[in-house]
Amino acid sequence: MAVDVSELVEQARQGRPRAVARLISLVEGASPQLRDVMAALAPLTGNAYVVGLTGSPGVGKSTSTSALVSAYRRIGKRVGVLAVDPSSPFSGGALLGDRVRMSEHASDPGVYIRSMATRGHLGGLAWAAPQAIRVLDAAGCDVVLVETVGVGQSEVEIASQADTSVVLLAPGMGDGIQAAKAGILEIGDLYVVNKADRDGADATARELNHMLSLGDARGPGEWRPPIVKCVAARGEGIDEVVEALEKHRAWMEERGVLQERRTQRAAREVETIAVTTLRERIGDLHGDRRLGALAERIVGGTLDPYAAADELVAGLTES
Amino acid sequence: MAVDVSELVEQARQGRPRAVARLISLVEGASPQLRDVMAALAPLTGNAYVVGLTGSPGVGKSTSTSALVSAYRRIGKRVGVLAVDPSSPFSGGALLGDRVRMSEHASDPGVYIRSMATRGHLGGLAWAAPQAIRVLDAAGCDVVLVETVGVGQSEVEIASQADTSVVLLAPGMGDGIQAAKAGILEIGDLYVVNKADRDGADATARELNHMLSLGDARGPGEWRPPIVKCVAARGEGIDEVVEALEKHRAWMEERGVLQERRTQRAAREVETIAVTTLRERIGDLHGDRRLGALAERIVGGTLDPYAAADELVAGLTES
Repeated sequence: MAVDVSELVEQARQGRPRAVARLISLVEGASPQLRDVMAALAPLTGNAYVVGLTGSPGVGKSTSTSALVSAYRRIGKRVGVLAVDPSSPFSGGALLGDRVRMSEHASDPGVYIRSMATRGHLGGLAWAAPQAIRVLDAAGCDVVLVETVGVGQSEVEIASQADTSVVLLAPGMGDGIQAAKAGILEIGDLYVVNKADRDGADATARELNHMLSLGDARGPGEWRPPIVKCVAARGEGIDEVVEALEKHRAWMEERGVLQERRTQRAAREVETIAVTTLRERIGDLHGDRRLGALAERIVGGTLDPYAAADELVAGLTES
Repeated sequence: MAVDVSELVEQARQGRPRAVARLISLVEGASPQLRDVMAALAPLTGNAYVVGLTGSPGVGKSTSTSALVSAYRRIGKRVGVLAVDPSSPFSGGALLGDRVRMSEHASDPGVYIRSMATRGHLGGLAWAAPQAIRVLDAAGCDVVLVETVGVGQSEVEIASQADTSVVLLAPGMGDGIQAAKAGILEIGDLYVVNKADRDGADATARELNHMLSLGDARGPGEWRPPIVKCVAARGEGIDEVVEALEKHRAWMEERGVLQERRTQRAAREVETIAVTTLRERIGDLHGDRRLGALAERIVGGTLDPYAAADELVAGLTES
């Protein structure tokens, strides 16, 4: 069914949550209208400040996200939340319990909450998340919080899609910082020790500070990731987190780092789409006589696989 | 350093193990001469019967492979062994202990043994293994045994690169067949219960037979994977394994299945190389002004990522 894309975009701009939801569905489902939607969104994007939140299960990511939403709402910002669970095959499935905790924002027209599961998606997280972020951006969100379960590679991917990356920790999570994979220590622009009213919060912050300083080879003009303590469940320290975020944003804007990060992000996005497009074109050749004929010549020993691939690539580029 | 490829291929054909080793290094390392090597090999390939062996750690894969090598040597066949460990970043690293057990074949000029670790390889297993198989094939191996550690996706990949896939099991491996991931039950052309002198071997074979029959929707003319018991460490039952292999090979040849499998395999190989080539071409644009300029226009809101990807793809195809 054809959708009036510009009408939908207009409705999303006016703050209609169903239009936003519809647009995200169109972009994450790779619908035939994906390209129309993306073209319509392009001139409306670039306003949102994208904050990535990651951390191991149990650190209180969802509670922290919810507290951040409240804090940004208090200063009049429209907020989008994209909750990404790379391990869940179903949208909202594994995160449903968490989403319920965010129900206080459900009736707020200034907040959009969207869960996204990406397993099995063509191109994975790197492909689907930036498009949903673009919808939220174009819909007028001032801040987009991208919350993801910390599961190795994907958290790094998500971090690479944010303007600012926040790594959440909590005291008493196994052996604390050690449990956080080393990769996490490289991606944070800001570290938040949540559940700071618990025993061991100071030790966690100290240990983290120590580990960050070990790898610290930054020059005098570079950003040193601050460590902020909070108790998200009670809203304590959240204003300080927002303050640290805004400080990082201002720092990036001053030095052109924000523009630079966004340009790099866009470049990666284009690459991912281009590779996916080319893969699809090759996939379309399945059952096609061309690929079959090349394969038969290889089996017959009259062609080698590299020469065949060259012919295939040349063939793609003609079409 | 340039290598005389045709000379190297000629030496490999004459049975010089160092020439074979050198050729495999050239193809797995993506050397500049890769294409020359593949072109030189093409007319010499198609003779080897490729047997994939997979199974969980502890089932005795290496011992079984070694016993199969002995059995094929007794009937005068030249044998190549490719031991793939997708989890090891180092060639031969994790498998060194196993390779020592195969040292009885080390001085046999009719046997080539090669370990391959593929983590981090561009395109992974699907890219590197078929090329090494081609070298062994061209070097005159009648049989190539591809042994891989059973670790999910990669074993399926390896199976898809063999003419015949052998799944190894052993009694008392946790809960036996249940432990074997369901995927394994779909890829075997032949199931071997090794360590058949141990308690529970009959139960394992029965349980396997039951599970195979559950998923059995084969027509009357189709191949029903046999179950063979052996004690590889003492060489018992190995001739029966070879017999079952040869039966499967004859069945495939009779019905054109061998040709069909090889053609499909070649098609996948071409696809993988083509995608890798295109990815590399895109990668070459990093730092290139074209991708940077597109990304800047996206950030500026004058272009959307899909339109940018189209331009990128169009640009690739011109070059």
